[in-house]
Amino acid sequence: MIILRTPKGWSGPREADGHRVEGTFHAHQVPLAVSRGNPEHLARLEQWLRSYRPEELFDAAGAPVRDLDPLMPTGDRRMSANPVTNGGLLLRDLTLPDFRAYAVTVDRPGRPDASATGVLGGWLRDVIAANPDRFRLFGPDEVESNKLGAAFEVTDRAFVGRITPDDEDVSPGGRVLEVLSEHLCQGWLEGYLLTGRHGVFTSYEAFIHIVDSMVNQHAKWLKVTRGIPWRRPIASLNYLLSSHVWRQDHNGFSHQDPGFIDHVVNKKAEVVRVYLPPDANTLLSTMDHCLRSRHYVNVVVAGKQSGPSWLGMAEAMLHCQRGLGVWDWAGTHQGEDPDVVLACAGDVPTLETLAAAALLREHLPELRVRVVNVVDLMRLQPDTEHPHGLPDAQFDAIFTRDRQVIFAYHGYPWLIHRLTYRRRNHANLHVRGYKEEGTTTTPFDMVMLNDLDRFHLVTDVIDRVPGLGERAASVRQRMVDARAECRAHTREYGEDHPRITGWRWPATP
Amino acid sequence: MIILRTPKGWSGPREADGHRVEGTFHAHQVPLAVSRGNPEHLARLEQWLRSYRPEELFDAAGAPVRDLDPLMPTGDRRMSANPVTNGGLLLRDLTLPDFRAYAVTVDRPGRPDASATGVLGGWLRDVIAANPDRFRLFGPDEVESNKLGAAFEVTDRAFVGRITPDDEDVSPGGRVLEVLSEHLCQGWLEGYLLTGRHGVFTSYEAFIHIVDSMVNQHAKWLKVTRGIPWRRPIASLNYLLSSHVWRQDHNGFSHQDPGFIDHVVNKKAEVVRVYLPPDANTLLSTMDHCLRSRHYVNVVVAGKQSGPSWLGMAEAMLHCQRGLGVWDWAGTHQGEDPDVVLACAGDVPTLETLAAAALLREHLPELRVRVVNVVDLMRLQPDTEHPHGLPDAQFDAIFTRDRQVIFAYHGYPWLIHRLTYRRRNHANLHVRGYKEEGTTTTPFDMVMLNDLDRFHLVTDVIDRVPGLGERAASVRQRMVDARAECRAHTREYGEDHPRITGWRWPATP
Repeated sequence: MIILRTPKGWSGPREADGHRVEGTFHAHQVPLAVSRGNPEHLARLEQWLRSYRPEELFDAAGAPVRDLDPLMPTGDRRMSANPVTNGGLLLRDLTLPDFRAYAVTVDRPGRPDASATGVLGGWLRDVIAANPDRFRLFGPDEVESNKLGAAFEVTDRAFVGRITPDDEDVSPGGRVLEVLSEHLCQGWLEGYLLTGRHGVFTSYEAFIHIVDSMVNQHAKWLKVTRGIPWRRPIASLNYLLSSHVWRQDHNGFSHQDPGFIDHVVNKKAEVVRVYLPPDANTLLSTMDHCLRSRHYVNVVVAGKQSGPSWLGMAEAMLHCQRGLGVWDWAGTHQGEDPDVVLACAGDVPTLETLAAAALLREHLPELRVRVVNVVDLMRLQPDTEHPHGLPDAQFDAIFTRDRQVIFAYHGYPWLIHRLTYRRRNHANLHVRGYKEEGTTTTPFDMVMLNDLDRFHLVTDVIDRVPGLGERAASVRQRMVDARAECRAHTREYGEDHPRITGWRWPATP
Repeated sequence: MIILRTPKGWSGPREADGHRVEGTFHAHQVPLAVSRGNPEHLARLEQWLRSYRPEELFDAAGAPVRDLDPLMPTGDRRMSANPVTNGGLLLRDLTLPDFRAYAVTVDRPGRPDASATGVLGGWLRDVIAANPDRFRLFGPDEVESNKLGAAFEVTDRAFVGRITPDDEDVSPGGRVLEVLSEHLCQGWLEGYLLTGRHGVFTSYEAFIHIVDSMVNQHAKWLKVTRGIPWRRPIASLNYLLSSHVWRQDHNGFSHQDPGFIDHVVNKKAEVVRVYLPPDANTLLSTMDHCLRSRHYVNVVVAGKQSGPSWLGMAEAMLHCQRGLGVWDWAGTHQGEDPDVVLACAGDVPTLETLAAAALLREHLPELRVRVVNVVDLMRLQPDTEHPHGLPDAQFDAIFTRDRQVIFAYHGYPWLIHRLTYRRRNHANLHVRGYKEEGTTTTPFDMVMLNDLDRFHLVTDVIDRVPGLGERAASVRQRMVDARAECRAHTREYGEDHPRITGWRWPATP
């Protein structure tokens, strides 16, 4: 590599308006304002251009003289035809182990508990091992704390400095690029993708905002290059965000920000995808899809803590293919028109929604409840707005045209409104999500502070479904009391109430 | 200043589980997992804590022994009571020159043309001069290109390195902190505010995303400290964003991103404010307000290019106080129910909306048109959502309950839907804004590429207002033709059609 340092504006006009240009800040932007009709600047521009003796370089018709022909590169040596500038030409598919072999065996909905990213880690380990020349994992010292540490069974963190006996899992040839600078991770990964290789960037959800401006530029590049016929697609830029807003353990308010999704969906629909798999099997299926995709920005948000496994692998694959779907087993009175739709996106909102569905089944068994889970967030948009958008007829069939919809969402609630405001039933859609409340506290206190908890979702149903308010007054009161009881427990014991930590989806009768 | 560098985990337990802790990565997070019921770790924790000989430090009741009393600081020397940690205690108001003296004299709407930030620059210059100990301007080498260069009539860029004869406006005592690192600018300004002083951060709109993550943390700090009684409010964090999405001159797609507004409005409503003054006088009034405010994040987006001055200073002040308002002079058939509302926010959308209103007046004089301009974006939200939110009755009075509203917005159009989805007339609200189209081209081509241009706004009116479609078919056709003509002109001459550059608001009959 050659690094050439030159004066700014080197070889340009030396001066203008009585000050030096070359080598000074005056060489920035437009040193000669010719377009403004400045005759002195125009004369200086001409003088400078003539210093290149164009009469020796061009013929009378303005074409380069033939003597110059041998200087011009041909074929792949032409700058834009050189494969190193068009990595898609060099792209080879990843060798992907069959993700189904890593599946959690789900005996019945909710069993067993598993760490979604922990399970994924096993698959990613084998992706790394199977692709020693074309796949890397990038992250700001969070690979281990995002539960992807299995990677270190087959590789190390790349490090070319001095390694001490106290260091672990570091070596110059490591396939994991870990450094506490999101900017470096992003820049390295972008560069790596542009060479025709593949990668995943894993980060705490809140801190991926650090690269907002960089992902903007990459997304804009993807949008523009989609329209350039000779540019071959490159591997997608994959984000796996964990340690998310709802599960901060010993961290607090500073670590709670689900807004990267909002940021990304402002970019051109053709190049952005957002996935919120609710458990381990759906995460496996989602990541396999992302690593096969091309020329997108994929944002995947998933939990690292142990949580319920809802779907067996066959179901999980179908669910991910559809992007969203009715979970019949979680609702009541299947085959009938629902009185209310409980929708959810994200692992913690899914847990709270399922727990709310179980409470409704127990306390209001006559209520017809439909549960809908969303993995692919862009399905919510009309198909005129996003390639993944669900056609209106299908959306109406799932979310109904006139029933109340209580939507528990992982991030800022208004994003769901933004995606659905054109839908027929939008006026009946009520979204719960993160509203900048909470700090270092228990997981269930976090959802209570943001009104996303199971008890609040049940009161939302009671308050919204016509005719239910008076009939269900005592159920409502029990929900309010349950919140108070759970809150008090956190304040006394510093952990969640056993009725929360011990809750499991009940065996369907 | 003393900098002390210590081993990580210094003075903590030396080792655990057979590996060194102190001075290694093992000292990060939770070296002893006592909470998991690990008896060996518990014993080691006790051993470590006992090494401090607590029996010498605490009495039988657990209180510090009296011998220690003299070590404890009192009064203002207590850590959190020290005024240097509570800058609001030291805060002194700025000496603000009367901004009305800097006003553009508006003969009639639209005259004369003026650069909004250029006019503001004169006032900011005098703010700097009047507050040599408590105000600074921060920016990534864009003070001059954002047309705030008047600052350099009274001060310099701060620079403590070697200054050469080619440098201009730099000195160690300069009050402008300019460095091409938005991170440094943001960090410096946050620190400066925390000492009880005041400042403004000026940046290109697209690149302020670089500090997304930092402004998150500051906004969270503002939210939390609002609830701490002894914390005194500090000066607001003021952003003046120019060189915005619509006017990029020789820059292109990479410089076009109006999403910082979207990012900021995800933070707690109590601490965020967003202003889009449409001309020089409204910008003066807005910035005066921001520099008097406390404990907010204020985002002000304003143009730097020469553009129409719509309001005289007295009107501008009233308009800014209201935050939004009907511009009677721009509509038709005042005092009657409108057939359509043309709303706008931002300088370029305001220009296009006014030009559309003039076209409607000319071609469809019987149409009753109301023009509404929005300066304070948060007025659009319900008052239950934001302190600046307009009560529903007022919103309905201005935007009507059932008439079509064509809203021309500066940024991503869905933000307006997000802010207004609870409003009664939301289903009739149609927003035009930036949709990631365009690159280095003319100003009018930019608005055409994003369907925000005057001609498109007129066709939106014709397509939306019931009964107008058939009657106005020939007007509609003229608009489509005008777009084609203007597009062709840009392709032939590389600049906008004279009917665009020469357009002025017509004298009201």
